[in-house]
Parts: sequence; C-alpha cells; structure tokens
Amino acid sequence: MEIDINVDMGESFGRYVLGNDEALMPWVSSANIATGFHAGDPLVMEQSIVWAKKYQVAVGAHVGLNDRQGFGRRQIDISPAELRSDVLYQLGAIQAFLKLHDMKLQHIKPHGILYRMVGEQERYIDTFLDTIEDYDKDLSIMLHTGCEALKRAEKRGLKTAPEILIDLGYDTDGNWILERVKQARSPREVAERALRAVAEHKIDTVDGNWIHVEGVTVCIHGDAPNAVATAAAVHQKLTEAGVQVKALR
Amino acid sequence: MEIDINVDMGESFGRYVLGNDEALMPWVSSANIATGFHAGDPLVMEQSIVWAKKYQVAVGAHVGLNDRQGFGRRQIDISPAELRSDVLYQLGAIQAFLKLHDMKLQHIKPHGILYRMVGEQERYIDTFLDTIEDYDKDLSIMLHTGCEALKRAEKRGLKTAPEILIDLGYDTDGNWILERVKQARSPREVAERALRAVAEHKIDTVDGNWIHVEGVTVCIHGDAPNAVATAAAVHQKLTEAGVQVKALR
Amino acid sequence: MEIDINVDMGESFGRYVLGNDEALMPWVSSANIATGFHAGDPLVMEQSIVWAKKYQVAVGAHVGLNDRQGFGRRQIDISPAELRSDVLYQLGAIQAFLKLHDMKLQHIKPHGILYRMVGEQERYIDTFLDTIEDYDKDLSIMLHTGCEALKRAEKRGLKTAPEILIDLGYDTDGNWILERVKQARSPREVAERALRAVAEHKIDTVDGNWIHVEGVTVCIHGDAPNAVATAAAVHQKLTEAGVQVKALR
Amino acid sequence: MEIDINVDMGESFGRYVLGNDEALMPWVSSANIATGFHAGDPLVMEQSIVWAKKYQVAVGAHVGLNDRQGFGRRQIDISPAELRSDVLYQLGAIQAFLKLHDMKLQHIKPHGILYRMVGEQERYIDTFLDTIEDYDKDLSIMLHTGCEALKRAEKRGLKTAPEILIDLGYDTDGNWILERVKQARSPREVAERALRAVAEHKIDTVDGNWIHVEGVTVCIHGDAPNAVATAAAVHQKLTEAGVQVKALR
Repeated sequence: MEIDINVDMGESFGRYVLGNDEALMPWVSSANIATGFHAGDPLVMEQSIVWAKKYQVAVGAHVGLNDRQGFGRRQIDISPAELRSDVLYQLGAIQAFLKLHDMKLQHIKPHGILYRMVGEQERYIDTFLDTIEDYDKDLSIMLHTGCEALKRAEKRGLKTAPEILIDLGYDTDGNWILERVKQARSPREVAERALRAVAEHKIDTVDGNWIHVEGVTVCIHGDAPNAVATAAAVHQKLTEAGVQVKALR
Repeated sequence: MEIDINVDMGESFGRYVLGNDEALMPWVSSANIATGFHAGDPLVMEQSIVWAKKYQVAVGAHVGLNDRQGFGRRQIDISPAELRSDVLYQLGAIQAFLKLHDMKLQHIKPHGILYRMVGEQERYIDTFLDTIEDYDKDLSIMLHTGCEALKRAEKRGLKTAPEILIDLGYDTDGNWILERVKQARSPREVAERALRAVAEHKIDTVDGNWIHVEGVTVCIHGDAPNAVATAAAVHQKLTEAGVQVKALR
Repeated sequence: MEIDINVDMGESFGRYVLGNDEALMPWVSSANIATGFHAGDPLVMEQSIVWAKKYQVAVGAHVGLNDRQGFGRRQIDISPAELRSDVLYQLGAIQAFLKLHDMKLQHIKPHGILYRMVGEQERYIDTFLDTIEDYDKDLSIMLHTGCEALKRAEKRGLKTAPEILIDLGYDTDGNWILERVKQARSPREVAERALRAVAEHKIDTVDGNWIHVEGVTVCIHGDAPNAVATAAAVHQKLTEAGVQVKALR
Repeated sequence: MEIDINVDMGESFGRYVLGNDEALMPWVSSANIATGFHAGDPLVMEQSIVWAKKYQVAVGAHVGLNDRQGFGRRQIDISPAELRSDVLYQLGAIQAFLKLHDMKLQHIKPHGILYRMVGEQERYIDTFLDTIEDYDKDLSIMLHTGCEALKRAEKRGLKTAPEILIDLGYDTDGNWILERVKQARSPREVAERALRAVAEHKIDTVDGNWIHVEGVTVCIHGDAPNAVATAAAVHQKLTEAGVQVKALR
C-alpha cells in the first residue's frame, strides 16, 4: 500500500514567517508551494524549491486568489477568464524556479477558497480543467476526493490526485470545516485518522459518524502550531503499518 | 540593412487602459510585454501575446520592479537576491502564456528604473546576467547600446540586443532623458532620427551635438499620445530607405 | 427646486489616468473622491480635493473594496468586521487631506460592488450604518434611492442622500445595470432623463416602461468617454428648467 | 526623572502574526502603531488601539513606505510630494480609529528606512516637517536623538521626542545598526543599557566605546523574539532606579 503526504509550504512573505517548512520536509512526499498571490513571494518560492530538492519531496503549485490580505480565503467573484489567466501566471512563475533547479512540477493544488471554487462551483470547474488541459496534461490535479471537478477530470482523462484532509473536521455529508487560523490537534489522533483513512477508507465526523473516503494523498496543514509533530506522527504511523509514503504515481 | 523596432506593450491594468497596443502591432517587430509587476496583469499579458502572434511580432519579457504605484520608475533598494527571484518569477509567468500560444520568448528588456539598475549599477549587473545565463542562454538581452551590462554580456557570450532610444532626448555624454509622462514628439522627426541612427549611426543631442550610436533595435515608447503615428512613420521611413524591419536575429 | 449632481472623481492611480476631473468640476456640486482602495492614491486624492475647493464642489468619500485589479467591482466575501475597519481607514485617510485644505466631508458613497453590498445585502447593511453612526452622524449616506440601507438609515435618524443613476439603464424592477467599462450615451438624452427624474420623479427602463424615482442627487459616471459633455448638458438642462444645482443641504 | 518606553506594534497583517502586542502593553508607555503601508491593516490597527486604551498606553502613528514586501526597509526613491501625501494618508487613517475610541494621537514615528530618510536625507527632511506642521503642530515627532530633522524641528518650534535605540548596536559615530530580522539580546543587558542611557546619558558601541546620548524615549523592538521579556526587564530596571516610565510630555 502507498500514500502521498502533502503539506502547504512557502507561505512566508517578506518579513512574515509562516510555517516551519524545512522541519516538515523529512515527513512529507509532496509540497504545495504558494505561488505569490495569496502567500509566498519569489524569494520564498525558490527557497522552498531548494528544500524540496534537498529532501526529495515532489513539488506542486499552490495557486491562490490574488488576495494577501485575506490569505486567499475570501471568495472573490472573479470571471472565469480571470481564473484562467491567474492560474497560468502562477503556474509559469513556479516553473521558472523549478527549471533552474532541474525539477518537475508534479501537481497543482488550489489554495483556500479557490479549492472550493474550482472543485465545486459550476462557474469555475470547466474553465479550471480547460486551463490545466491546455497547459500541461501531465499535471496531477489535487483536489478533495469526490468533488465534481475530479469527476470531470477523470472523464477527460486528466491526472487526478484525490485527497483526504486528515487534520480537519468532517460533517456527515463529507464536507470539511475550514478554520480561519489552523488549530492544533493531537498528532497521535491525526495519525490514527490518517491510517484509518488510508487502510480502511473511513474517517470520523464531528457528529460522531464515519464516512467513506478514498484518496491517494493525505493533507497536513503546515500552518498548525504543531504541524511538524503531526507530520512526523502521521509518517511514522503509516510506515509502521506497512504503508509506503511516496509522491504521486 | 536590417533593424528591429521594439515597443513596450501590455501596460494596461484592470480598468486602466494604457497604450493602443493592437494599433501599434503592424508597425513593430518586437513587443516588450509587461509582466505584471510594474504594469500589466495576467489577462492583459495573454491578450498582448494573442495580438503579437496575430501580427507576427516577436515577444520579450518587460520585467520591472514590483511597484505599480510608481510604474517601476522609482528606484527601490532591492537586494541582488530579490532582483534574481523577481526576474525569474516574471520570466516564468510570461512563458506560461507563450507556451499556450506556441510562441517563444525572444528577449528580456528591463522596464523603467530597472533598465538603469541592471544596465549600469555595479550592485546589480552581474546578478542580472547570472540570472539570464542560468535560466535561458538563448534569450537576447535588450539594453541600451554601450551600457556596462551589455559589454559584460558579450564577454560571457550571451545574446545581446543593443538598443537606441529614438524618441528620447540624449545629452552629449550619451545619457538619455527619461520622462515621467511620455510627451508627444513629431513622428516625422522621430522617423528621421531613426533612419540616421540606423544608417549613419548617429543621433542628435539636446544640446545640439551628434553622438555615435550603434544598435540592432530602436525603441518607440508606446505610452506617448501619438505612439501609433510615430511607429508608422518610423516603419515607413526605414522601409522606404531600404532598411528591413524585422525581429532580432 | 434643487438637486445635487454628483460624480466619481480621483480614480487615477500613479501613471494611470482615468477621467477628466478638473473639466467636470464646473458642472457638478458633489465629488465622490476615491480613497485609495479600489482606485486613487494619496497624491491623486489631494489634487482632487484642491480642485473641489477651487470649484466650490462638496466632497464625499468614495470608499471601495481593497481591489485595484478589479476596480472594486468584484464582490469579495469580506467579514462585517473587515467592512467596518476598511471603511473607517478610508474615511480617516480622506479627512487628513480635507483638514489641510479647510474642507469638510459632506458624504460617503460606496463604490462599485460595495454600493450593492452595503445598500442591499443583509450581511453588511447594519454594520455599515453602525460604522457611519459611530464615526460621524453628520455624514450624508449616498446610496440608491429606495435601497434597504437608506430605509434603515432614515429610521435611525441618519442623514441620507438618495440618488438616481441617470446615465445607467434601469429594468422595470428598479434595478440598474452596471457596465464593466462605462459606455458613452447621448448627453442630450441623459440631460432629459435627469430633468424628468428630478421634476417628474420618473425614469425610463430598458424594456420601455417608466418607474417612479425620488432622489436628492443625480449621478454622472466620470469614466464615461463623454462625461464632461454629459455633465455640462445635465447642468444646463436642469438650470434652464429652473432647478438649482447645489450640494446636499 | 522620567522616560517614555516606546515599542512598534500592530505589525501583523491578515493571516500573518508579528509580535506579541498585548503582552507588551503593560511594560510600555507609547505604542507606535503601523498604519497599513509597510505593515498592519485596518483590523489590526483598531485592535491595537483598543489594547492601547485598555493599558493606558499613548498612541503614535508608525508611518512607513508603501512596501509590504520589503517591510518598509528598502529605500524607495519617492518624490517629496509622494512623501507628503503618503504620510498624510496614513495619519488620517489612524485618526479615524482613534476618534472612535476617544483617543488622541500623541506622536508620529517613521518606520524602517523612512526613519532615516526623513531624519537625515536632505531631500526629505523639510517636506516631512512641513507636513507635520501643516497637519497638526501638536504632534510629537519621534526620531533618533541628534538627527538633522529633530534639530530643524526644534528651530521651528515643533514638538520633538528624541529617542535612543537601546536594543540596537551603535558605532562610535553614533550610527545604529539596523537588523533585517531582529535578533534576541539579553533582557538584562538591554535593561542596563536603558538605565545607563537615561541616567548617565551614555551608551556602549559595538567597537567597545561609549557615546553620549540624550533622549526622552527609549525604543524596544517588538519583533524581537524575546521582546516581552526585554520590555519587562527595562521597565523594572528603570522603575527600581526611580525613573518614572510615562508617555511623552
């Protein structure tokens, strides 16, 4: 059995430090690197890629809305044309740094509210998929397992990376609950959720039920205060159970 | 005899329209497209590239300081590391749109004060050249003829595109005079300066002298009120004199 | 009979010029000056205030969403707390320039999509009114005649300035139709609509009907290509008909 | 004997938290609150003012260059007119929040490189003083003791608050050494420097000498990792020595 562990990285910006990126690297197989719209900046992007290479972690573009003030978490009523061009701009930007370090872009994962917009909102889904398809068919699309965009991506023959949010709460309908500022959870508890999600395809909900989940990657939020401990616990738990932690494909 | 005519384009931003880009396209061979830091935005960038393709105009990255308020014309004391990462970010961003439209990036031309910083200021010259050399040796570096950066670029074996600013004033030392808001000049006069610069390698100065200039490209500022008339006059004058207007190399 | 003519001004930004503000001044009685979030900048703000003083035009704060890219026309899902603090910040900023020129802030008019958000959306109405009430009870609130926010403002005893959008289309339900880039309309036609709106309290709709409107101010969009001609025509038409053009109260 | 302890606050921005502002409040008498250009945002500004009121700390406007990416620490070659309007905009903005909480603006302190620009650079000094004089003669100008701007301010009869940077290194010429990211120093050592600076008017230099300093306020940098411990130590040391810690005037 195999699983990818992905984490958001490169969210620092100028004087503002967010996350403990290098310490996380040993425990994950994929890094979603912020591309400078909602977080990150060119210096931070290159540093993140240097670390990813050092720790042999695969790189994804963590594209977001152009809204640093809101950290990409406030819906902005952009047009589909704006979505397309904003995504392309960010994809290109990260590619420049990858090119310099002889690395390849493995996946794209939208950040914050954009994750919902392109994953679930009719207005944006097809434009998002068109953009990926036009730009690079080889890019894996990392979105929440079961979302409408992934269903359509599979029909189109695009590469998908359905993910499970093991450190967020779920309700019985399979919706996850976004936190404005990520709270700490017990690393042991998150690790157990991860193993159950991977091995038994189920995750507990905030109202005490279990829902079925299927994914090729599990996400750990890097901006939680105890993110490093959590990532280490998840990695260890999975490895001990015989699950191999490795990047997509 | 051949010459390239280059013009800055894609400087509009959201609701703000600057320049009459499509009308300029028939008269030029190279377009310097703003890459979203000092001017331009992702939608404008793609539109500019679509027009460049339609009119068979070669595309350059018009990279600038991250300062929309100052339109990239105010010196910012960035570090060489910031210069490098800012340039890479912008180069990558424009490449994404070029890739989608099967076009190639021909050159890089720094905008505004960055043109001086990387062309003449010791603190930045080598970092700029290193960045181009690491990223893409095939990129032509468009800077003012005779500047220190071009001299060093030639020694390194990089591709250079020395340019002459035919619509700006020069002093006897060969310095050009930047205008905060581009003023209109007589198209006929600019066309005559262009021909003389190309055919006789000389240009007049504001104090009534002549200086020697040598370049493979002449620049027309697209934000002058009469930029289209000027570009047309220059193109016609050169063509009539048997000079072929064509992109670099 | 009296009426106020208001126009948006101060929307230029750095190198980007928008509108022909000084030419508009003689024809209007109130200027809505952009406060630097969706448009305008500190230099432009002060210049606008200098012109307003010269032409004895009353000044309002044209507050907007913090989104230059979208010119404040894309809804952003800000929290009510963000609305409050963003409005206060902008009100304070314009007051500094007014203080230096011994002028008074007459009114507040939200720009673009914020006009709808605080005028009609339940999530924002009361927070907006609370903010004005806490900050300065003497400020007139300029919003569309009949909107929910104005109804509640009147109940609270706040000063209101219901406006009629004489250069935009209306539908039979009284909704106006926002244009992404303001189109030119015949000045004569707009002037006639203005007079009819003021004197007969009715305005025509895009589907050929008439609706009842009542307002103390009529708006002319300064970013229309022929805004000056329109403002002049409206001013002349109203004056000739014996309606006095003057600022609020 | 009396002394003011001032600290930079309100430097958080959206999701990015910087400093431990509330914990600092009990130990200081003046808070320099960032006004949204180099750091801070409208929500953070109001929160900072609420805390200042709660702890009876006087408020100053910590105005900066409009450069979040560089945290206001990179010189930008703005014009004097831009300086003036940027300062006014920020002063006005903070006044709105103070008005709502019935507080008064005690002082203005420029942040980062602006501190040097308006304190020492001929191009900016007089414009800065003119701006304060025009806006509010009652505002104390907090700048480094002995700088040219303070000398001229005193000649003009403006209120001055010369400060000593007790947690930064000095060289023998009286220049302080700015750190890109503030390093931790021993609180005990800083406290001793503070007392010596206040009581004996001398401070040690990095090359082992002593220089004479005279100030009415001492600055503690809030973004040092141990800022709270340092502020507490300084406050205690001064108080124990019979120096009363209180706001300006």
